[in-house]
Amino acid sequence: MSQSELHRDFHDLGKLSAADAGKVVWVRARIANVRAKGNSCFLVLRQGPFETVQACYFKDKSAPERSKAMLKFMGGLTCESVVDVQGTLQAAQVKSCSVTDVELSIQRVYVVSSAEAILPFQLEDAGRPEVEVEASQSTDRPFPRIGQELRLDNRWLDLRVPANNCIMRIQSGVCQLFRESLYAEGFVEIHTPKLIGGESEGGAGVFKTDYFGRPACLAQSPQLYKQMAVSADLGRVFEIGPVFRAENSNTRRHLCEFTGLDLEMTLDEHYNEVLAIAHRMFKHIFEGLETRFAKELAIIREQYASDPVAFTDGPCIVHWPEAIRMLREEGGMPEVGELEDLTGAQELRLGELVKKRHGADFFILDKYPSAVRPFYTMPCPSDAAYSNSYDMFLRGQEICSGAQRIHDPDLLTRTIAAKGLPMEPLESYVNAFRHGVPPHGGAGIGLERVVFLYLGLDNVRKASMFPRDPNRCEP
Amino acid sequence: MSQSELHRDFHDLGKLSAADAGKVVWVRARIANVRAKGNSCFLVLRQGPFETVQACYFKDKSAPERSKAMLKFMGGLTCESVVDVQGTLQAAQVKSCSVTDVELSIQRVYVVSSAEAILPFQLEDAGRPEVEVEASQSTDRPFPRIGQELRLDNRWLDLRVPANNCIMRIQSGVCQLFRESLYAEGFVEIHTPKLIGGESEGGAGVFKTDYFGRPACLAQSPQLYKQMAVSADLGRVFEIGPVFRAENSNTRRHLCEFTGLDLEMTLDEHYNEVLAIAHRMFKHIFEGLETRFAKELAIIREQYASDPVAFTDGPCIVHWPEAIRMLREEGGMPEVGELEDLTGAQELRLGELVKKRHGADFFILDKYPSAVRPFYTMPCPSDAAYSNSYDMFLRGQEICSGAQRIHDPDLLTRTIAAKGLPMEPLESYVNAFRHGVPPHGGAGIGLERVVFLYLGLDNVRKASMFPRDPNRCEP
Repeated sequence: MSQSELHRDFHDLGKLSAADAGKVVWVRARIANVRAKGNSCFLVLRQGPFETVQACYFKDKSAPERSKAMLKFMGGLTCESVVDVQGTLQAAQVKSCSVTDVELSIQRVYVVSSAEAILPFQLEDAGRPEVEVEASQSTDRPFPRIGQELRLDNRWLDLRVPANNCIMRIQSGVCQLFRESLYAEGFVEIHTPKLIGGESEGGAGVFKTDYFGRPACLAQSPQLYKQMAVSADLGRVFEIGPVFRAENSNTRRHLCEFTGLDLEMTLDEHYNEVLAIAHRMFKHIFEGLETRFAKELAIIREQYASDPVAFTDGPCIVHWPEAIRMLREEGGMPEVGELEDLTGAQELRLGELVKKRHGADFFILDKYPSAVRPFYTMPCPSDAAYSNSYDMFLRGQEICSGAQRIHDPDLLTRTIAAKGLPMEPLESYVNAFRHGVPPHGGAGIGLERVVFLYLGLDNVRKASMFPRDPNRCEP
Repeated sequence: MSQSELHRDFHDLGKLSAADAGKVVWVRARIANVRAKGNSCFLVLRQGPFETVQACYFKDKSAPERSKAMLKFMGGLTCESVVDVQGTLQAAQVKSCSVTDVELSIQRVYVVSSAEAILPFQLEDAGRPEVEVEASQSTDRPFPRIGQELRLDNRWLDLRVPANNCIMRIQSGVCQLFRESLYAEGFVEIHTPKLIGGESEGGAGVFKTDYFGRPACLAQSPQLYKQMAVSADLGRVFEIGPVFRAENSNTRRHLCEFTGLDLEMTLDEHYNEVLAIAHRMFKHIFEGLETRFAKELAIIREQYASDPVAFTDGPCIVHWPEAIRMLREEGGMPEVGELEDLTGAQELRLGELVKKRHGADFFILDKYPSAVRPFYTMPCPSDAAYSNSYDMFLRGQEICSGAQRIHDPDLLTRTIAAKGLPMEPLESYVNAFRHGVPPHGGAGIGLERVVFLYLGLDNVRKASMFPRDPNRCEP
């Protein structure tokens, strides 16, 4: 309980240095490790994902009783407890901590918050690269494998693992960079409703709820609403918000709730304007991560190895027919259909081929067949079998989907009929275009997808703070 | 459909000036008004909430047929249609438009998107100050009253009204300034799940859904999750995201879905640290709005009159017992209870008294009685009848609620029991504190509340893009 201010004037571990040797300081930190042996006790203190320091206490012969009690107390400290430590800085050489040139000679220790002695897993075990864990299995002392479910059941603990903690900081950075880029292009932030009246906004995979006696469902995307924001003369809009998909997909890249980074904008002449803005935006994210989040990336890459993403200066655009030709001729996949959607394997292969040809891990596949895109996608003017739509790929997997949208209510009505969809639930959507709306297009991006593919992780769940899948809705 | 790029090189209306008289330009804009009379036609063209320009066409005696057809075509143009207009800039004096020193002499007009001839309401009518509308009722030509439901049914049209459009831009600005302030203080952005397993996270007012055969509900706040983020050593976190309240409240200040601005942070010594950060954050928002969004505010205040918010440089804190004394003695409300929550009327009165005494529209009411706060609120160490919690008020209404949280699992267990709450649904929440968690506190802010109170609007729905209340879940 906040009582009075004690003026302990806590120090950041990262700022401790041998230059201050002799000074008495207070630090608040977690206990990462305790080694008590006879007449001494060594603690490793940790602050966040970046900093650790060694703190030590030796038996004081001039005060044997107090000293004995202190050693007993310290030996009983548990890992992950939060403590306030007062100590004198003294020059030292400590290889195993981030603070290498100084340690704390302990005078006082107070427990601020005590962790249970038996934790679900040790952070040290949870923080080892998987290759090390696997390599150890054939030795005398195999490292324990810390499974995903155990980690997720205790996610607050799992996220203290430095690499995992930094993944969350990278997630934050992606949002920050996304917005920076779009603010610079004149975008306005919007917040669209997640509760939508009616049985469904179209299609399966919808979570339903009772809304004061009437049916409602959770938004599968802000699509309709961001288009209405354009109709409302906001010009260029973006939203960062949750997206809900009640799809029973248990894969490494699907979530039932994820964070959508959405944008929508008027077009002057061509939907290439969206591609240009989206490309600049991703470039800003990739460059910003490597420069402004280098410390976080270094820590993540110690546990999960990955190279920075290779990308081109201008948009690297591959048109659909060219992609099909590449897959058939160079990719050894003659079975690829001309107007069918690509499988995950085909997408990965295409990613390899584009990497070989253009040196890029990041590219745009443009002009998708109309048959595999939603009804609101603008057909290609020269061939209605194709559409003014695209996906963006990172390391061979989709991170973004976008298109020019149909803004003409009559064309929209005809497209809905041609797709064999019922008109009635889409009536109000179409009506929203009857009061005049400028040509527009946009993009929808999955935040967790961007993070997990950028970092070359094996599972999207690692990029979600509290992932939701068909088997998990807690903690 | 994007075909080829036409290179029309559209001009922003705001950049047209008499200095360019004689130049031929293209503009894309909405038609705000059409006046056709015999041999001439005048259009008012509008871009977004800020800019209008006059465009005119006169019968050309040298091409009478073409000219006649042109006048007929232009006379049939509908308000709110989007058009591409090519014309010659010519010096003029136009009082009724934002561009006052130049007009467009029209050469060509293309309809990009046609609006229906009969709109649900005219923007001009929807954009009049209410006092003008009311004053006109006793005259020969009363202005139509455009009701809230009709506006909300056609929200994309209602938001084209310049003041309403700018309210959305202010909403965007509040989020931007909120984040700017917190980034500067070392906060990390998080995204917590909105789908929560189980029947309820506690209390009534929860939207429920079926989650693959199991019960789940929509988050009423990110409370638990932002606390777990602190436990996960993210230190200082914020989130901007939707919050769901299935409360059957039909008031001017409640919504069933709103945007929460949440923050949570470790405390070194005292929860005053949260108050200081929240105060600086609001100051940054208020100052940023007046300086960086002055154009938007000016347009809003033309329709909805309001003064800037008066605020103090440091936090203006009123402690609970002092507030009760003020209400009883100066406020003429002897009936106010010592440990009961304030009514809306009492809060408004308190706002007046604080304004009189401190000159501030913005203040913090600190040390709420424990009885009226949630179970996770830290009791006040000197008197458990009070708590380490506060609300922030703007113009006499609550915009923010916050507290130090209980981080000790045993104290938390005792508080839950003392409040008479069932332990079972809160078990996992309490368990999350058993692995060590630093002392922490935070704040929860309603975005739409901040916007509607800052602007002195009469209804929170005006500050929500697509408001949700017990009677409305569409569009």
